[in-house]
Amino acid sequence: MFKEILENAKKKTPLVHCITNYVTVNDCANILLACGGSPIMADDINEVEEITSICTALYINIGTLNERTISSMMLAGKKANQLAHPVVLDPVGIGASKLRTDTTISLMQNIKFSVIRGNISEIKAINNDSVKIQGVDANIDDAISEENIDLIVSYVKNISKRTNCVIAVTGAIDIVADENKAYIIRNGNPLMSKVSGTGCMLTAIITAFCGANPDNILDATACAVVCMGLSGELAHKLVVENHAGTSSYRTYMIDEMSKMNYDTLKRGIKIEIK
Amino acid sequence: MFKEILENAKKKTPLVHCITNYVTVNDCANILLACGGSPIMADDINEVEEITSICTALYINIGTLNERTISSMMLAGKKANQLAHPVVLDPVGIGASKLRTDTTISLMQNIKFSVIRGNISEIKAINNDSVKIQGVDANIDDAISEENIDLIVSYVKNISKRTNCVIAVTGAIDIVADENKAYIIRNGNPLMSKVSGTGCMLTAIITAFCGANPDNILDATACAVVCMGLSGELAHKLVVENHAGTSSYRTYMIDEMSKMNYDTLKRGIKIEIK
Amino acid sequence: MFKEILENAKKKTPLVHCITNYVTVNDCANILLACGGSPIMADDINEVEEITSICTALYINIGTLNERTISSMMLAGKKANQLAHPVVLDPVGIGASKLRTDTTISLMQNIKFSVIRGNISEIKAINNDSVKIQGVDANIDDAISEENIDLIVSYVKNISKRTNCVIAVTGAIDIVADENKAYIIRNGNPLMSKVSGTGCMLTAIITAFCGANPDNILDATACAVVCMGLSGELAHKLVVENHAGTSSYRTYMIDEMSKMNYDTLKRGIKIEIK
Repeated sequence: MFKEILENAKKKTPLVHCITNYVTVNDCANILLACGGSPIMADDINEVEEITSICTALYINIGTLNERTISSMMLAGKKANQLAHPVVLDPVGIGASKLRTDTTISLMQNIKFSVIRGNISEIKAINNDSVKIQGVDANIDDAISEENIDLIVSYVKNISKRTNCVIAVTGAIDIVADENKAYIIRNGNPLMSKVSGTGCMLTAIITAFCGANPDNILDATACAVVCMGLSGELAHKLVVENHAGTSSYRTYMIDEMSKMNYDTLKRGIKIEIK
Repeated sequence: MFKEILENAKKKTPLVHCITNYVTVNDCANILLACGGSPIMADDINEVEEITSICTALYINIGTLNERTISSMMLAGKKANQLAHPVVLDPVGIGASKLRTDTTISLMQNIKFSVIRGNISEIKAINNDSVKIQGVDANIDDAISEENIDLIVSYVKNISKRTNCVIAVTGAIDIVADENKAYIIRNGNPLMSKVSGTGCMLTAIITAFCGANPDNILDATACAVVCMGLSGELAHKLVVENHAGTSSYRTYMIDEMSKMNYDTLKRGIKIEIK
Repeated sequence: MFKEILENAKKKTPLVHCITNYVTVNDCANILLACGGSPIMADDINEVEEITSICTALYINIGTLNERTISSMMLAGKKANQLAHPVVLDPVGIGASKLRTDTTISLMQNIKFSVIRGNISEIKAINNDSVKIQGVDANIDDAISEENIDLIVSYVKNISKRTNCVIAVTGAIDIVADENKAYIIRNGNPLMSKVSGTGCMLTAIITAFCGANPDNILDATACAVVCMGLSGELAHKLVVENHAGTSSYRTYMIDEMSKMNYDTLKRGIKIEIK
């Protein structure tokens, strides 16, 4: 399955419309090219519908949202829904401000997302209204560990059911789940947290893989998470070998994504189904 | 001639006012420094005229245009025209949306550009109104090849005549032409298309070289295209040697531009006049 | 003292709210992570107060200011003052346009800054109103040299007294001063001027170090300047060894910052008190 997903991304060159933050936008553009896709960044309200129409998927990232771009996200998302394009959300920093929380909720009310990716704090924040009902909030720490993994898996499946999206929770251990099935992924390296935008880049890759595999969103998302994690592992070896630092690490990660193929994936994948 | 152009760029440190997209803006800034220039990014309508006045050339790139920055482009362009500064346009993605097409046409109606650079699709799009008259559109594929090169050269010379700009069409083979003379340039490497912003960076270098050589726009543009292509070739050797990927490739390209000199250019240049 | 400052930056992971330009914002984010901090970029007026409230320091950089972000800078700065967070200003290009000069003056009138960092031209520009009184303007060249250093030190101490900020003037030689004490720092390498954003990155590090050491702003600022200069020196050795260029140099600088520790600092520091 992952073989086909990877090959489709390379073969179909999915064109991805990105409305994203200005901090990591260049890394998103370059990793989209590296994974086989092609990026178009456009955020003016007078063109977002047209741009989305010529693409195969839409990536919305609220990292540096503002009033102008929020309107564009909304309009582009609705258009992409009409065209049945996968739409993927990265709710960066939701919970850090009312604007981010309200915007995310409003986007989720008006747009059908295929996938939402965040760290566990962000995913908890998108589920705000149901936390009280489920009463699990107090039991879920912000770090996914071997001890709480079963609890979190069932929590994430519930969020997926309620929101009707594939949910990707990334951290030391990653979970990609719909309401019935969860992939637990143990690829990656702690140094990834020392590079700005690894989360944004991953969500960009997810969007490209979903654009190239629209009938298999869950697996496309899991495959993207594995590829990013593996790139992080392979890049870490180079950092150690070269006595390098965090900026070289960023470069190596994108390099490894550009060289990724099914053989590398098969050798390195650390995945489990729950 | 190219020797003098290169030396002027290093000697005069041309200050380039950039109104460009937020995706590749950092690469544009760094490659401007690498080629001998100095960048200033400023897009607020209340300062663009002043900023343009202290510079020697203006670079307009519509990659992530919006209502606010379009007004600033217009105002800066008119001011630069008054001061007889070279103004260079990169109509990124023209044709992908009405906003991009209309903006480009409006910019071309209100501003005298010295150079317009794009891929063949973008250059065809800026010529939209005359395509029917010339009837050549159907004959021109989006890729320049050895088979259609004479046809495209004459097509580009015509666009240059009609628009009164030097036209640079880049792709597998590059063409830089005014109405009388065309340079065919065969430097470069296919991997350049896997790095976001190689086109934007090239247009930035063109602007710097024109700023330092305002009386020789055609040759300055051709020299910039050669330098970028050569940097792409030399960087590709390093990627192969180091088993690296596309992000290292970006770094190596800018590195090679920063080390470019006339000896390197003379050894590597692949140019022909038609 | 510098030992404690460095260790606090690593230990406390100071969260830095950045309202900065879109040219070098990614480098600022990555060098903040590299030096031990954590970046949040947010510039919408509807969230800047909340974002600043969860941070420990605020970084304001006017590199690509516009009407929208100027209002956000003002609001965030006032909030940070209420919370007694260190606020650091980088008045990029002040003097190049009336908008930049007026904005800087207005920011300084409404916000209490802990530190202002600029090159000598920028620092002269923030002192515009007092230049006539002191009559020293004509004596101060734009480059700090061994000949004029005593004059500039006393000039900078006066600006610090008048503005009630620590002033960091960076160039071939760096000066960090309050009204009573000046550090003269001779770390760094001329190649740093060929990388876009070394100034912005330094100011970001200053903000992080002040956030982690709010009771010792002068030393925190000096320590940041030393660390950046040392990173530039160590990175330069790698450029020479690897026959690399300016883009690798940027990567190496951030790498060196991510590997910086007190042993490296102690071995390389070139500092003097006046």
